[in-house]
Amino acid sequence: MNAAGMRTRIDAAGNLIGSLSSPDKKNASPPKRFLLGSHLDTVPNAGAYDGILGVMIGLAVAEHFASLTTALPFSIDVIGFSEEEGVRYAQPYLGSRSIAGSFDTSWLERVDEQGVSMREAIQAFGLDPNDIPTAAISPTEVIGFVEAHIEQGPVLERLDHAVGIVTSIVGQSRLTVEFKGEAGHAGTMPMMPRRDALVGASRLVGQVRDTGCGIEGLRATVGRMMVSPNASNVIPAAVELSLDVRHASDAVRLQAVDDLIAAGQRIAAEDDLRFMILHRSDSPSVAVSPRLESLLIRSVEAMGIHNTRLPSGAGHDAVVMGQRFPMAMLFIRHPDGISHHPDERVDVADVAVAIDVLIDFITRLAAEEAAIQTT
Amino acid sequence: MNAAGMRTRIDAAGNLIGSLSSPDKKNASPPKRFLLGSHLDTVPNAGAYDGILGVMIGLAVAEHFASLTTALPFSIDVIGFSEEEGVRYAQPYLGSRSIAGSFDTSWLERVDEQGVSMREAIQAFGLDPNDIPTAAISPTEVIGFVEAHIEQGPVLERLDHAVGIVTSIVGQSRLTVEFKGEAGHAGTMPMMPRRDALVGASRLVGQVRDTGCGIEGLRATVGRMMVSPNASNVIPAAVELSLDVRHASDAVRLQAVDDLIAAGQRIAAEDDLRFMILHRSDSPSVAVSPRLESLLIRSVEAMGIHNTRLPSGAGHDAVVMGQRFPMAMLFIRHPDGISHHPDERVDVADVAVAIDVLIDFITRLAAEEAAIQTT
Repeated sequence: MNAAGMRTRIDAAGNLIGSLSSPDKKNASPPKRFLLGSHLDTVPNAGAYDGILGVMIGLAVAEHFASLTTALPFSIDVIGFSEEEGVRYAQPYLGSRSIAGSFDTSWLERVDEQGVSMREAIQAFGLDPNDIPTAAISPTEVIGFVEAHIEQGPVLERLDHAVGIVTSIVGQSRLTVEFKGEAGHAGTMPMMPRRDALVGASRLVGQVRDTGCGIEGLRATVGRMMVSPNASNVIPAAVELSLDVRHASDAVRLQAVDDLIAAGQRIAAEDDLRFMILHRSDSPSVAVSPRLESLLIRSVEAMGIHNTRLPSGAGHDAVVMGQRFPMAMLFIRHPDGISHHPDERVDVADVAVAIDVLIDFITRLAAEEAAIQTT
Repeated sequence: MNAAGMRTRIDAAGNLIGSLSSPDKKNASPPKRFLLGSHLDTVPNAGAYDGILGVMIGLAVAEHFASLTTALPFSIDVIGFSEEEGVRYAQPYLGSRSIAGSFDTSWLERVDEQGVSMREAIQAFGLDPNDIPTAAISPTEVIGFVEAHIEQGPVLERLDHAVGIVTSIVGQSRLTVEFKGEAGHAGTMPMMPRRDALVGASRLVGQVRDTGCGIEGLRATVGRMMVSPNASNVIPAAVELSLDVRHASDAVRLQAVDDLIAAGQRIAAEDDLRFMILHRSDSPSVAVSPRLESLLIRSVEAMGIHNTRLPSGAGHDAVVMGQRFPMAMLFIRHPDGISHHPDERVDVADVAVAIDVLIDFITRLAAEEAAIQTT
């Protein structure tokens, strides 16, 4: 970033921000900024592109404009968000929430698996958690935010398109549910009076798959299952399982969740088990900015590329940023669709297309902004 | 044991043995012994009766004969086996295998979760692992072995009978199997090309239950399931699960295992998964001694109690002892059938019945042995 002529800083939440300033203008009291970027962090045993690729693409775009003699009518801030995945404290979007002003300071008291609180971890990194509110950026300064990210899915690969424009970030319901039955000796307890929690939980796993397959665009997944006592010769007394349900339509998603809860209750009644919802969170779908989206479409079409539009099934910093600033996202084709894994990869040619699209996008945006600022 | 006039010793495998000697006879060169007992150890968070009750019942029986003026024509050895559950080294029956001469010295190199080898643990207890072969008792010295144990099941309670005579110890197949699919992002990967290992594993859980319910006397259980990576937003890539299958008939059990393996393979083929058997062990059913069983039946009938006979679905030291010595087992009613749990309980009146049955049994056996030894 420094080599590209940007001023760099680490904000109070650990976000790395490089600014390519617009020339000072006497009449523009608060300088307008356009934000590009994605996250710096990743998960254990991860790939090389999830997150960081969006930061590098932002840097490449900034480098292009730094090399021009004509200045932009706004600054470009390239942001490397500090903590998006939420691995350590089971709380995603720490960096972007700080910039969007939605960091909840009660999170500072959470502890990791080693008993270290988030407050202590931030202090050990050399930052003062009490300063986190200073990381917030005012919406009045910001024209918008665009995040480039690998698709983490198979759609662009199947269509054979290098990039795609995100239509919305799908809403998500995350539940932790539990079946409770009764433990017993696997050798002595006859089959018929058994209250085997794993048998009930397994039936729900099948129902989740069937529900997911039955509704276009729905994603329904049981990714986590904890069996108690989890011993080969003991009938399972309790099984805790996660439900992850996503759809672009909030109404469709909520109906699917209702159906799955009803299925859990019905299975529990049939198998003489108890069914409980231990935790539930619902995130509505997040819309993209029509202005930024239409500019992206024009940039893609101007390059002679097919205008592919698709929802984002995953959450991104753009979810949080989109609640505060105009937001859009550009997806990059993801060969084999394998993410959060060392085999994650991208094609260099696709990355070049993404950079070219965003350079064209910034150029069009600059023309619009110049027209706005001169009127 | 000492208070009852028994000589006590701890053998090279840590078994506690109390001997009530028969009077020396000049003509009986190797003194004959009858063995009673069960195990001293238990599992974490266990109840108060599994194992130790059989030792205490043996002691009560020995106390009775110690108080008589008429000597028995054999010694009574009450054995508290040192390690039956196999918690620390995943290897059950260490004490009884030592006495039965089937201790495998390669087990000494196994390590526990803290990295301590069995050899080191035995040394730390003050014994020399190299002496373990000296714990073996010759079958020529032994008339037989009877183990009294809580049923760990609901049969006697439902029949409202205090005790039951074990017909055989059922054979058991233990398998660890695995479904392998492919990880993927729960939000971005469409439902249809998913290779979700948990969906396949859950189908097999249902099949195990159906198979268990479909065959009289079969017990089929999935008690343990490990999901990888076990994250709520990742499609499960692999699921390892245990299969525990038991039946009094070895042929029925092996056929059921074959059927379940075929079901796993069929599910894997249908769901585009891989199915593997990671581990399998098969223990045949163990027969009881017809002589000891018929004596137990006569003792029970002589007391005016219904002669209830039932298989043992659980393994016991009697499995190992029965491979070396004539063996029988007496089950004691187990209210609520809850075992390996602090709520495990027995009724004192039932324990008294068990003691009386075994005193009668030893009396009848003594009469038979006296007749044999004088002819």
